[in-house]
Amino acid sequence: MDNENLNEFVLRINAREKTGRKEEVPEMWKHLGGRGLLARILLDEVPATCDPLGPYNKLIFAPGLLVGHRISSFDRISIGAKSPLTKGVKESNAGGTTGYQIVQLRIKSLIIEDQPLDPKFSILYLSKDMIRFDSYDEIQGKGIYESAKILTQIYGKKVAIALIGPGGEMQLRTAGICNLDKDLVPSRISARGGLGAVMGSKGLRAIIFDSEGCPQPTLADPETFRKTQQHYTSTLLAHPQTNVYREYGTSANVRMVNAFGALPTRNFSSGVFEGVEKISAEEMRKNLIARGEDCKTSHACMPGCVILSSNVYGDENGQSIVSPLEYETIGLLGPNLGVDNLDDIARMNEIINDIGLDTIDVGAALGVAARAGVFEFGDGQKAIQLLEEIRIGTPLGRILGNGAAITGEVYAIQQVPVVKGQAMSAYDPRAIKGTGVTYATSPQGADHTCGLTLRAKIDHLKPEGQVDVSKTVQINMAGYDTIGACIFTVFCVSTIPYVIKDFLNAKYGWWVDEDILQTLGRETLLMEHEFNKLAGFTKADDRLPEYMTLEPIAPHNTVFDVPGDEMDDIFKW
Amino acid sequence: MDNENLNEFVLRINAREKTGRKEEVPEMWKHLGGRGLLARILLDEVPATCDPLGPYNKLIFAPGLLVGHRISSFDRISIGAKSPLTKGVKESNAGGTTGYQIVQLRIKSLIIEDQPLDPKFSILYLSKDMIRFDSYDEIQGKGIYESAKILTQIYGKKVAIALIGPGGEMQLRTAGICNLDKDLVPSRISARGGLGAVMGSKGLRAIIFDSEGCPQPTLADPETFRKTQQHYTSTLLAHPQTNVYREYGTSANVRMVNAFGALPTRNFSSGVFEGVEKISAEEMRKNLIARGEDCKTSHACMPGCVILSSNVYGDENGQSIVSPLEYETIGLLGPNLGVDNLDDIARMNEIINDIGLDTIDVGAALGVAARAGVFEFGDGQKAIQLLEEIRIGTPLGRILGNGAAITGEVYAIQQVPVVKGQAMSAYDPRAIKGTGVTYATSPQGADHTCGLTLRAKIDHLKPEGQVDVSKTVQINMAGYDTIGACIFTVFCVSTIPYVIKDFLNAKYGWWVDEDILQTLGRETLLMEHEFNKLAGFTKADDRLPEYMTLEPIAPHNTVFDVPGDEMDDIFKW
Repeated sequence: MDNENLNEFVLRINAREKTGRKEEVPEMWKHLGGRGLLARILLDEVPATCDPLGPYNKLIFAPGLLVGHRISSFDRISIGAKSPLTKGVKESNAGGTTGYQIVQLRIKSLIIEDQPLDPKFSILYLSKDMIRFDSYDEIQGKGIYESAKILTQIYGKKVAIALIGPGGEMQLRTAGICNLDKDLVPSRISARGGLGAVMGSKGLRAIIFDSEGCPQPTLADPETFRKTQQHYTSTLLAHPQTNVYREYGTSANVRMVNAFGALPTRNFSSGVFEGVEKISAEEMRKNLIARGEDCKTSHACMPGCVILSSNVYGDENGQSIVSPLEYETIGLLGPNLGVDNLDDIARMNEIINDIGLDTIDVGAALGVAARAGVFEFGDGQKAIQLLEEIRIGTPLGRILGNGAAITGEVYAIQQVPVVKGQAMSAYDPRAIKGTGVTYATSPQGADHTCGLTLRAKIDHLKPEGQVDVSKTVQINMAGYDTIGACIFTVFCVSTIPYVIKDFLNAKYGWWVDEDILQTLGRETLLMEHEFNKLAGFTKADDRLPEYMTLEPIAPHNTVFDVPGDEMDDIFKW
Repeated sequence: MDNENLNEFVLRINAREKTGRKEEVPEMWKHLGGRGLLARILLDEVPATCDPLGPYNKLIFAPGLLVGHRISSFDRISIGAKSPLTKGVKESNAGGTTGYQIVQLRIKSLIIEDQPLDPKFSILYLSKDMIRFDSYDEIQGKGIYESAKILTQIYGKKVAIALIGPGGEMQLRTAGICNLDKDLVPSRISARGGLGAVMGSKGLRAIIFDSEGCPQPTLADPETFRKTQQHYTSTLLAHPQTNVYREYGTSANVRMVNAFGALPTRNFSSGVFEGVEKISAEEMRKNLIARGEDCKTSHACMPGCVILSSNVYGDENGQSIVSPLEYETIGLLGPNLGVDNLDDIARMNEIINDIGLDTIDVGAALGVAARAGVFEFGDGQKAIQLLEEIRIGTPLGRILGNGAAITGEVYAIQQVPVVKGQAMSAYDPRAIKGTGVTYATSPQGADHTCGLTLRAKIDHLKPEGQVDVSKTVQINMAGYDTIGACIFTVFCVSTIPYVIKDFLNAKYGWWVDEDILQTLGRETLLMEHEFNKLAGFTKADDRLPEYMTLEPIAPHNTVFDVPGDEMDDIFKW
């Protein structure tokens, strides 16, 4: 992969022919990265009506615009395709080391095309000088954790790896793509929308990014960049929210969302959970400190991150079960299943990670299955058994592994918390209505990372004003996802918003203004919306499930009542 | 149900309150019946985006305009709702006695609304004087055949019955609604699109139509009606095609479609089947005559029908296995599964009927499952076992019982022969391209009864001209479905097209012209198209599955190549 010159390029891989070629970056792609670039490439190259698991879909990797310089929490990788779950546009980003390494390799975008005729998987190895398809025999039949261990033994500890597990091999529609964190643990999952199934359909079990020997990417104005980075890092470190994240991680949300009456309990049939204290961040922190050994209450997923919102959850002997244990996973596998035991939740999380699936959609599927009588709410052990059925691909396992929407169809359940086929996260939209607007209208399907309104200064129970709140956050989030920044930087960046333009101008020699984040966000959303329209989406798809407009949720006994025609205006600006 | 006066009325049943009320027929509904009236009512009353198994959907029965007078093959009942399978407009019509009796009861349309809160089923009994909800205890857990026997013991042999089986109780998306034939066998299924699941969601296991004591419906001009009927019947009897239907039934198509290279073999992977002779109409006729006893090579489904296309298929001892055994069922359960044994096919048919499902969609689902490796093509015994799994609702049974589209999603198979989620019938659209246009563009989803082009004078392998051919047939079929005529009358009626206006004018005192069939057909299709548009359908939904445009089918090695933009014009007139 001759990249003697330092320019970024597009790397195209043909999965059928097992070949690759470097191309110049088209002019229209240059100002984009991450989520925005994915939307552009999908619009330019993928027929919107194609079969997501067929030869016309493309699996695309694109680092955000500011990735590759160890700006704290700015090294995220975006992965995208037409989603086999939502059948629409899909971007899912993750931390870990893939983003950093792909930039060192000068890859502006990695585009994987077509699909092999024979079902044998392979491993794609990318380095400064080489594009190679390797045998996957060593990891055949193995879970994500063991696969990653074997791959780092083979390829060394300096590489980044994006890999799928048994779920992706089976092309289950909740399968994600896992990336190594800085400790080589494959826990940074581009989880949502079934991108792992797309990678499976391309016959790739893992992609190795080996940037050994690549020089650092250049900067147009290194001095300004360095100063901006110092200013940003010290502001981030000084922000009180950074401390909250470091001490409690995202699980600080457990008590807060329960207090909002929006903690999804027993398949979203209540917004409060009687066992909330047992699964709270405070309880978790106490446990982790007491258990010691592997346990960590704070941990970085990306090198250079100073927020450290991650954690390592260990068992009674302090042996690591899973890292990290996040709020959304706790919500969907805990209260949503009536389970109040953090150890059970952590074990479920570990199994789902090892199969390489999305904890949110699988958790939601289990909730629907419990509503259908497949198992009893509260029976964590049975839930663990069901997850093992997914791993071996029993019929029930395949149902659950394909997510909440299919589980609901198969069991004829009306109470299925999905939009565009994708499960809602651990925020009931009847009690946080702005987030309901995001779930309904985001081109990505239900996804809290596209515009969580939890902290907006608004009465979350009233329908008024929610569309505006959601719109603002959706635009911002699309911007963050385009530059590669973690959403946990929002608190800090919103106090010093000019740093984004300073970073971009210093890196690229641009002259952009402070509203660049929103400009990129708007452009991204419009492109995503357009792709979905071409794929056949209409305003009928921009709605919450009917039952959420009919069945009130405790304790506030509210239904979702933001008018549809107000929501339809969200992309008009 | 006080209907002392002889006017038709609308009967509205509230399934939650368990009440009913008679209403006048709205002016806009009077000129419509059957499929056309269903489309009108759905547009007028059902929110197109509603949950098909939720409270806002309505299950609607509407006899065709000419039903109720024993015109040969003109007594079909149309049943409709928003489909839980296609998520769009749905009409499915059947022969048997329901149509005739509902007209004697003066019911222009029976509209079942809302749904009960408790899951207990009941039986709806309708007579001249009564609307009653009866216990279903006697038939709880029983299949269609035994249920029908018990119900005729309870309600007598003069009633018509529309009932669902275990499949409808489970709200499986291939569940149909079964109607008694003139011999009280519940084999006349409104099979397509999951209407049985909708009836299940309304808490109704059976509806009894008891027209005892109702006077014959009046005619505006009885003398002309009688003369038209005589003329029509003698022409029908004299038509050579009537003899073909009588001797071979629809199974005459087996050899013909194989000769076209369009007989779906092994999950639509070939258009010719090496075992075709063993499952041909000629072989079947020979067997049935040799076996004697219950076996019948011709049989009427409706009183007064002189075509007698039905049959009774018996085993080696002449004991009835199933009646009728139709071409489409043979195609989907025979060649499509690599099965060349008519006895096995008949037994599968009997089981699917007894669960109350659509043989086409279940057959297609089994084909997809065989492609996925769930069982071996050709293993009829294993296929029979899988059908018994559907009956008891195992996870695999539920997957298959929800049809080909869901089976394909669960097993990540690309070769799924569906449009709008509904399975194609036994005509591969790559070798009969006009029928492919019908599958793609019909608002009903893939359905050969909406416009089979098999007999059009056209090169079926070429893309040219197929849109026009399909359009003409689709309009005609929508007309036939609106007046209540069996599609097997087409041969005869096309030679004396004026009889339709004569019948209508003599019955209603109208002054309609000879193009009334096409006028009704066009109006019906436009309403259906409009409903789907409101439900969120776009031209992206009016396409065959991608693989059929990429993978050629033997023996002609053609793909489906009618251009999408030509197909998009089909409803512009």
